[in-house]
Amino acid sequence: MFEKKYDVIVVGGGHAGAEAAAAAANLGSRTLLVTMNLQTIGQMSCNPAMGGIAKGQIVREIDALGGYSGFVTDKSAIQFKMLNKSKGPAMWSPRAQNDRMRFAEEWRLALEQTPNLDFYQEMAIGLLVKGNKVVGVRTSLGLEIEADAVVLTNGTFLNGLIHIGEKQFGGGRAGERAATGITEELVDLGFDTGRMKTGTPPRVDGRSLDYDVMIPQPGDDIPERFSYLETPKLTLQRDCHMTRTSAEVHNLLREGFDRSPMFNGRIKSIGPRYCPSIEDKINRFADKDSHQIFVEPEGWNTVEVYVNGFSTSLPEDVQYQALKKVKGFENVKFFRPGYAIEYDYFPPTQLKHTLETKLVENLFFAGQINGTTGYEEAASQGLMAGINAHLKLKEEAPFILKRDEAYIGVLIDDLITKGTEEPYRMFTSRAEYRTLLRQDNADLRLTPRGYELGLASEERMRRMEDKHNKAKSFVDFFKKTSFDPVKVNTILDNVGSAKVTQSDKMFKVFSRPKVKMEHMLELESVSNYVTENQLDTEILEQAEIQVKYSGYIEKEKNNADKLHRLENVKIPENFDYSKLKSLSYEAREKLEQIRPVTISQASRISGVSPADISVLLVFLGR
Amino acid sequence: MFEKKYDVIVVGGGHAGAEAAAAAANLGSRTLLVTMNLQTIGQMSCNPAMGGIAKGQIVREIDALGGYSGFVTDKSAIQFKMLNKSKGPAMWSPRAQNDRMRFAEEWRLALEQTPNLDFYQEMAIGLLVKGNKVVGVRTSLGLEIEADAVVLTNGTFLNGLIHIGEKQFGGGRAGERAATGITEELVDLGFDTGRMKTGTPPRVDGRSLDYDVMIPQPGDDIPERFSYLETPKLTLQRDCHMTRTSAEVHNLLREGFDRSPMFNGRIKSIGPRYCPSIEDKINRFADKDSHQIFVEPEGWNTVEVYVNGFSTSLPEDVQYQALKKVKGFENVKFFRPGYAIEYDYFPPTQLKHTLETKLVENLFFAGQINGTTGYEEAASQGLMAGINAHLKLKEEAPFILKRDEAYIGVLIDDLITKGTEEPYRMFTSRAEYRTLLRQDNADLRLTPRGYELGLASEERMRRMEDKHNKAKSFVDFFKKTSFDPVKVNTILDNVGSAKVTQSDKMFKVFSRPKVKMEHMLELESVSNYVTENQLDTEILEQAEIQVKYSGYIEKEKNNADKLHRLENVKIPENFDYSKLKSLSYEAREKLEQIRPVTISQASRISGVSPADISVLLVFLGR
Repeated sequence: MFEKKYDVIVVGGGHAGAEAAAAAANLGSRTLLVTMNLQTIGQMSCNPAMGGIAKGQIVREIDALGGYSGFVTDKSAIQFKMLNKSKGPAMWSPRAQNDRMRFAEEWRLALEQTPNLDFYQEMAIGLLVKGNKVVGVRTSLGLEIEADAVVLTNGTFLNGLIHIGEKQFGGGRAGERAATGITEELVDLGFDTGRMKTGTPPRVDGRSLDYDVMIPQPGDDIPERFSYLETPKLTLQRDCHMTRTSAEVHNLLREGFDRSPMFNGRIKSIGPRYCPSIEDKINRFADKDSHQIFVEPEGWNTVEVYVNGFSTSLPEDVQYQALKKVKGFENVKFFRPGYAIEYDYFPPTQLKHTLETKLVENLFFAGQINGTTGYEEAASQGLMAGINAHLKLKEEAPFILKRDEAYIGVLIDDLITKGTEEPYRMFTSRAEYRTLLRQDNADLRLTPRGYELGLASEERMRRMEDKHNKAKSFVDFFKKTSFDPVKVNTILDNVGSAKVTQSDKMFKVFSRPKVKMEHMLELESVSNYVTENQLDTEILEQAEIQVKYSGYIEKEKNNADKLHRLENVKIPENFDYSKLKSLSYEAREKLEQIRPVTISQASRISGVSPADISVLLVFLGR
Repeated sequence: MFEKKYDVIVVGGGHAGAEAAAAAANLGSRTLLVTMNLQTIGQMSCNPAMGGIAKGQIVREIDALGGYSGFVTDKSAIQFKMLNKSKGPAMWSPRAQNDRMRFAEEWRLALEQTPNLDFYQEMAIGLLVKGNKVVGVRTSLGLEIEADAVVLTNGTFLNGLIHIGEKQFGGGRAGERAATGITEELVDLGFDTGRMKTGTPPRVDGRSLDYDVMIPQPGDDIPERFSYLETPKLTLQRDCHMTRTSAEVHNLLREGFDRSPMFNGRIKSIGPRYCPSIEDKINRFADKDSHQIFVEPEGWNTVEVYVNGFSTSLPEDVQYQALKKVKGFENVKFFRPGYAIEYDYFPPTQLKHTLETKLVENLFFAGQINGTTGYEEAASQGLMAGINAHLKLKEEAPFILKRDEAYIGVLIDDLITKGTEEPYRMFTSRAEYRTLLRQDNADLRLTPRGYELGLASEERMRRMEDKHNKAKSFVDFFKKTSFDPVKVNTILDNVGSAKVTQSDKMFKVFSRPKVKMEHMLELESVSNYVTENQLDTEILEQAEIQVKYSGYIEKEKNNADKLHRLENVKIPENFDYSKLKSLSYEAREKLEQIRPVTISQASRISGVSPADISVLLVFLGR
C-alpha cells in the first residue's frame, strides 16, 4: 500500500504531530502523518485558546522559525490580548481565544497545502525496529509502513483512561478511543514509562448563563497577532466573562470528595500543578473561599462555552450541583461534564537535545508523551523533533536552541536534563535570560536560524530585517539627536520627572522610567522622523524597548556569554564517570543516566553539585 | 444533573437524530439531544452528497414540512445538479455535493439556534421503562435522564463491527467507537433484532490523481436549491470527475476474494442491494468488465476526495493495488481504506405508522435502526418521529403522510407494512403515484400540513402560496387566451409540429409534446404577461409542468382517490383475526403480526391475497 519508504512518519495529528509533520515535510523529507482520525487533526482538547504567559512567547518562537501555530491561531482567533502589558516587556505575553472548529480546520487545510506531506488514517500500534534503529510503524490493520525516522506524538491517547467520579473508561479524549500497543513495545525496547494525569472542565450551554452578573473580559482595543507574517487582523472580537466560586460552591464540591478519583486513590498519577482541578485548589488552598472562573466562548457562532478554572473529575452530579451555585450559572445546562484522563508518558531524560531517544536511533518523541502539558509546549517540541528528524536523515548538524536563545531551548533542556515528575508547563521564571527571550524579538532571535535551515521563508526574513533595521535606525536617531531643553522640560514637568539644565542626546532623557514613546512623540523632530520613515506601532514599540531596557538586556547578554563558556566545554560522548571516584555517588549515577553533552548541562542536573562540576572541569583539563 | 423531566430525548445526532430533535423542539417539546460526540453532529458518514433520484424528492419534502436538511444542504453545497431533467418532471431529482465539514457545522449551528433544545454528550446505554412505557434513558456514567418520550436514532453504532479484509474491530464509524447496551435491553423488552451491513469506499488524496484523463462532471449551469426558503445561491461550483474500472482492475480485486469478509462468510448480514460494494458488482455482474467511478471532492478547500462506486471491504492492499489500475488513479495515495460495517437494526414491522414501537409506548425509532440506508431516508424518519413524539405527548392526532402525499409516506408505510430484509433505499418505482410526488410540488403538497402542525413557518407558507397562485394564474392565462394562428404557425413550423388552421386557446397548442415554454415565450402576449407579473423561472417551470402533464396528474389523482376509499376502511385496533377462519393461515399470521390500520394497508402485506381482502371487507360490512 505504501510502496516507497517515507523519510519521516509522524504518529498523531495534534499540536505536536501537526508541527512535526509540517517541519519535516517543508524541509524536504517525504513525510507521512498517521492519525486515528483525519477529522480531528489540530483538535484543541482542552481550552479554546493559545498563548498566555511564557506560552505566548513560545508560539511567537514557533512562528519565527517557520512553524504553523502562529498563523493558524491568527486565522481562527476570536479575541486577542497582550497579557502583562503593564509590566516590563519580558513579561508581555500574547494570548488568543479561538474558534475551536476553525482552528482544527485551518490546521488541516494548512497541512494539506504542505508539499511532501501525505496523510493516512489509522491507529499506529507498534514500531518496526531493526537493531537499535526504528524503520517504520505497524498499524492496527497489520500494515507495515517503512520510514527512516519516526516521531511519536501520542498526546493523552496511550492507554488513555478517563475518570468521572467513580466511573472510568478507556479513551484518548471524551468520545474518542484510546491508543494501545505503542507503550508495551517501547517498554520491551527498554524504555521507562510512567502515568500522568490531566483534566478538563465541563462544557456548558452559553444560553443558560446570566452574563449580566459576570465581568466582561474583552480583547485588546487594538488587537495584535501571533504571526510575524501578514495574517488577517481581528476587526470583531468576542468577550470572555469572569465570575467566581464561593464558600458554598466549595462546600458542595467537598461533599463529593469521597467519590473523587483524585482523593479515593483511583488516580495515582500526578496532574499539572499549575493547572489544577477545582477540587485540588480547594484542597490545597483551604483558606481561600473563592477562585476565578473564566467563561470562554468556543467559537464565533456556537453557544457552547468552556468553563476555565473549573477543571474537575468529581462525579457529574457534584459538578452540576456546585457549578449551579456559581454566580451567573444558576440555570446552567451541561453539554458534557469535566473529566480527568490518565495516560502513559516516557520520562524525557531518555531523550537527546534533538528529542531523539537515546535507546532507539531515529525515533523522536514530542508533546505530552514527554510529560509536558500545554498546546504550545507540545507544538514547539513537534517542530523541533520534525526539524531534527529531517537533519538526522540528511546527516546534517542537529538544530538545538540554547537556553538564552529561546523558551523552546529552555523547555527541551529542562526536560531532557531534569526530567519531570509532573506535567511540565512553561513559565517565564524557568528562563534565566527571560529579558532576552521576549515575544517582540522572537523573529530577531530565531528567523535567521529558521531561514538558514530552509524553514523560514524569504518573506519572513525580509520582514524581520526590515523591522529591526528600522528600529535600530530609530534608536540611533535618539542616540545621535540632541534635544531642545525648553521643549523637553515641558514634557518632563508633565510626567513629574526632574528638569534638565542643558541640552543632551534624546536617548538620555528617553531612558528615564517615566518618559514613554508617547511623550517623545511630542517633540517635533521625533514625530517628523516617524512620519518620514513610515514607522508603525510595532517599530515604535521595538525601539522603545531597546532604549528603555538596553541596560538589562546588555547585562543578561553578558551573563549568557559567561554561560556559553561552560557550554563550550563538551563532555566526550562515552565518558566513563565511574572512573571519577571523587564525584559523589549520586552525581555519578545521574551523570551516567542523563549523559550531559556539556559541563553547563551537567551543572543543571539535580543532584550534581558545584563540587562535582569542579571535579569534572579539572579532569577535562580546564 | 437534569432536574426537570424532558418531554423528548433523542439519542443520536446524525441525520435522523438531528431532524427529530429539531422537529420536536420547534413544536414546543422540551427536547434533549444525547450524542456520543457533540463534535460530530450532522456528520456525513458516507459520501459528501445529498439527494439524488427519489432521495432529492425526500429532501424537498423534509424542507416543505419545515425540516432542516434542505437549507443545511444548500448552505454547505459545492455543486448542484437536477438529475433526469430530460425525462418527465416526476423523475426530476435534485442532488447536491457538499463540503463535509461545513455540512456538519451548519447542522450544529442550526440546532443550537433551535428553541427548547438542549444537548448532552454521552453514550446512552439503556432505557428507563415503566410498565410498557419508556420514561427516559440511562447513560454510560450511570445518569438517568427522564423524559416522556424517547427517539432512538443509533445509525450504524449499535454493536458496530468494522471489517477490512480479514481484520475486524468494534466501531460506529472509522475512528469512532461503537455503542453498546441498547440492543440488549431492547431484546430483553421483547424486540426482534437483526444485523445489517453497509460499506464505504476509500478516501484518497486528490493531489495524487490525474484529472486530465477523467471526464469532468460539472454542476448545472443555473444551479437550483433544495430549500423553498431563500438560501444562498451557488455562484461557484466544484466539479466531480468520472472514470471507470477495467477487466484488469476486476482481476486484481478477485485475487482478494478469498480474504474478503463478504465472501469468506465473516460478514453474514445483508448490505444495500442498490449501493453494492465493488466486489459485489464484480461478483453479481460477471459479464461486465467496467463500472463507473465518480470522484467527489470532500469540500471547497480540502484535497481529500471520495471514490464513489468503489465501496469495498477487501484487504487494504487489494484495494490499493486495484484502484491504482483505474484510469487517473495510477499514483493514488490513500487517506484511509474503504470498509464494511455490520450493525444492529430492528425489523420495522415492530413500528406503528408514527414510528412509535408497538411494544413500548412513547418509544420511537428512526433511521438505520429501522433497516434503511441513506441520509435522506434517515432524516425523513427522524422528522416524522420527532413530530409524532411531540403530538403523542400532547395527545393530539398523529401526523401520518399517505402514499399519494409524499415519498416519506411511501417509505414509512413500506417499512412498517412489509418490513425489510436488506437496507431499504427509496426509488421512484416504489411510489405508485410518483407523478403526484414531484420535487417541484413538495411545498404545495406538504407546506400546508407543516404549517398546520406549527412546524413550517409563516414565511414558508406565504412563499408557497405566492408561487402556486402565480403558476395557477399563468395556466389560467393559457386556458383563457386565444392565439394568433399566423404567429403560432411560425413556432409550430420551427419545432416540427403540425400547423393549425384556425385560432384556439393557447393551452391547446402548449399541450403538444414538442412545444415548450421557451417557444410560448416567443409570443408577445405571453412574454408580456411574464414581464408584467414578474414571473421567475420557478413559476414558468411550474406552469409548464401543470400544462403539459395535467392529463397524467389528473389520472393519478383519480387512482389515488380510489385508494383512499380502501384507506378509509379502518380495521379496529384489537381486531381478532383468529376468528376469521376463511382467511388463509399465512394471512392470519401476518395480519396478526403487522396489525394494519386500514384495508389498504392490509392489501400491501406480502402474503395477504385479494381473496383475504374480500373476506375482511365482507366481515367489516362493506
